[in-house]
Amino acid sequence: MNKEQEYARLLIQVGLQVQKGQQVVIHAPVEAAAFARLCMHEAYEVGAKDVTVVYSDDAVTRAHFLKAEDGVFDETPLWRQHLLNDYAREGAACLFIESNDPMNLAGVEPDRLLRNAKAKGRDLAEFYRLETSNFFPWCIAAVPSAAWAKKVFPDLSESEAVGRLGDAIYETVRVSGNGDAISRWQAHLAALRARTEKLNAYRFASLHYRNSLGTDLTVRLPEGHIWQSGEDATPKGQRFVANMPTEEIFTAPLKTGVDGVVYAAMPLVHNGNVIEDFYMVLREGKIVEVHAKEGEEILKNAMAVDEGASYLGEVALIPYDSPISNQKILYYDTLFDENASCHLAFGEAYPCLEGGNDMSEEELRAHGLNTSTQHVDFMVGTRDLSIIGTTHDGKEIPVFENGNFAL
Amino acid sequence: MNKEQEYARLLIQVGLQVQKGQQVVIHAPVEAAAFARLCMHEAYEVGAKDVTVVYSDDAVTRAHFLKAEDGVFDETPLWRQHLLNDYAREGAACLFIESNDPMNLAGVEPDRLLRNAKAKGRDLAEFYRLETSNFFPWCIAAVPSAAWAKKVFPDLSESEAVGRLGDAIYETVRVSGNGDAISRWQAHLAALRARTEKLNAYRFASLHYRNSLGTDLTVRLPEGHIWQSGEDATPKGQRFVANMPTEEIFTAPLKTGVDGVVYAAMPLVHNGNVIEDFYMVLREGKIVEVHAKEGEEILKNAMAVDEGASYLGEVALIPYDSPISNQKILYYDTLFDENASCHLAFGEAYPCLEGGNDMSEEELRAHGLNTSTQHVDFMVGTRDLSIIGTTHDGKEIPVFENGNFAL
Repeated sequence: MNKEQEYARLLIQVGLQVQKGQQVVIHAPVEAAAFARLCMHEAYEVGAKDVTVVYSDDAVTRAHFLKAEDGVFDETPLWRQHLLNDYAREGAACLFIESNDPMNLAGVEPDRLLRNAKAKGRDLAEFYRLETSNFFPWCIAAVPSAAWAKKVFPDLSESEAVGRLGDAIYETVRVSGNGDAISRWQAHLAALRARTEKLNAYRFASLHYRNSLGTDLTVRLPEGHIWQSGEDATPKGQRFVANMPTEEIFTAPLKTGVDGVVYAAMPLVHNGNVIEDFYMVLREGKIVEVHAKEGEEILKNAMAVDEGASYLGEVALIPYDSPISNQKILYYDTLFDENASCHLAFGEAYPCLEGGNDMSEEELRAHGLNTSTQHVDFMVGTRDLSIIGTTHDGKEIPVFENGNFAL
Repeated sequence: MNKEQEYARLLIQVGLQVQKGQQVVIHAPVEAAAFARLCMHEAYEVGAKDVTVVYSDDAVTRAHFLKAEDGVFDETPLWRQHLLNDYAREGAACLFIESNDPMNLAGVEPDRLLRNAKAKGRDLAEFYRLETSNFFPWCIAAVPSAAWAKKVFPDLSESEAVGRLGDAIYETVRVSGNGDAISRWQAHLAALRARTEKLNAYRFASLHYRNSLGTDLTVRLPEGHIWQSGEDATPKGQRFVANMPTEEIFTAPLKTGVDGVVYAAMPLVHNGNVIEDFYMVLREGKIVEVHAKEGEEILKNAMAVDEGASYLGEVALIPYDSPISNQKILYYDTLFDENASCHLAFGEAYPCLEGGNDMSEEELRAHGLNTSTQHVDFMVGTRDLSIIGTTHDGKEIPVFENGNFAL
């Protein structure tokens, strides 16, 4: 079995654990058509009811944002609403294959992106809600494209860059071509689970982040919060891995319980724009100041999509010495870069609460979780990051020392 | 300007005559992505409101028909219904780029194709109705793909076959790379119009087909029928060319007024199946007998989709000595092959009546036109075909002699 096929099988059998008789939807860029077809065949192999492949095209998306009439950004065509919302409601397994040029939307008017994000938030609300609450199995994974590879490895020729990025991705998703990817993932998921259980046993009241960049941030955690990692499960018990690769252990912060200052450890690529050297100040959870050497307006726009976009929604822990971090590659893609470093996100919180998947939006809010149509990760983990956890009875437990787990 | 770009511009400016502020939808196979993008850019150049590109994939379609669960063929997902019906209702300009492997659906259970056609006929009825009545501008055109080219030129290497098919297509659509395609088309459309007006002046009561294959068929034409060719126009007066290439002059037969026997002059490719050496017997319009050396069941299934599928819906005249016919290439694609030869179609009639575009389905039926969700062209023109027209006052006028126009 070659690596490509092993990867496709991994995504279908571990990423989505496609069940016999289940509808499968694959979203893929046209450049990734060959790989999308491999995934499709693997899905039929395990008895998918039907496989729908929906192709996107960077060139079409870019022209749309640059050249279409202004009015189109405030609405989502009804067919796209049904495409996303209906399969979500049906519980279809959704594979999102990424291969995008990170710079594809560079130069697009930020206002168009903002209005587009708002329209999607409103018109695809059901899809986002069902995705966030794991109502259907979903998995995001990536394959290299020429434009992306050249951004990551600008000094290599196009074909060398694509090969190099492909190898790097296979390494992160534990695909060797030996056919052992599925068993490697079972071991990896078990290791993440063990550490997650340790964190859950402490039931921390808060975490205190500090490093030499200047980060000094206290994050209170809601009562009943749970740390999660790797695998999720639908209400029917179908397990899946929402991100491949994944190295993180994450939970939701208390919306109004974050105070201090936090510095980004890596650039953030958002809608084709690179935001560099930024930090933010938070008071009672709200991001009250944002400063960036580059891309400040993009960042501020992203936080202005709705009320919840200026509050945090995720706290994620990843050792500084982790497989992706050790590659020392800036992927310009959150799927990888977020797994190279401890991160936070502003916007929507995952329902990381006991019984959270069954709670309504109102109940989640009542428990102190943030809601938003936005969810943007940004990296904060450095080699010298320390995190001290404080338990409800006042004990201080080192969670991170020198960038790595201390427990 | 290279040929590809000249072709893209031709499709947008003559094929669809895209208007400033108009929504454009491009349907294309993934293999034709580069050409679809050229068309997209040309559409924005003339001021399209927005361009939506919808990609299909032969491999996905084939796997769907071979491997999906049986139930899925009786329904059209709601998002696909909206995708087709909504843009039609909006009056969007629709470009259909074909590049399909003619054999893509070979070996698929005929029953699945039949049920799929019935479901589409029901669920996309509004799209088909608005298309047939020219409510929105639409244009079908083709670009070569490897699989198609190898079917047409099996003895050439893949790249030679693709080049050869590309050259042949450019010839049929009058694209030379000199940038004169648009003016050549204006001349071509004017020539078709002149001959169409001659035919309309006769107001024939019937046509009598005869050739040495054994064809002996009388086709009565409805009162108020009009011959059409080349250009159509929407109710708002936006002209467009529904098929590129086009050489035909066509009208609708009287549904119950066709009697005799008619022999196919060329193989027919339908849903990836080749139907060869076939003839049919008609009585009072209904096809009462069908005989084929190969593919008889496929043909019978196609006529069983609904009541109207076993009656004729089109009468089209093309000289035996016409540009496409003279290429002596069997394209395995109706878009080309129907323009190489006089043809008939079973199924839906175009509303080729005075005021026909404004008539309801009931009114068209009352005028003797056939309705169906099916429309399948088959070729009947031979080198020795003669067609005699009879006027309402009994005059006999030679319309075709020895395969070519006699008037």
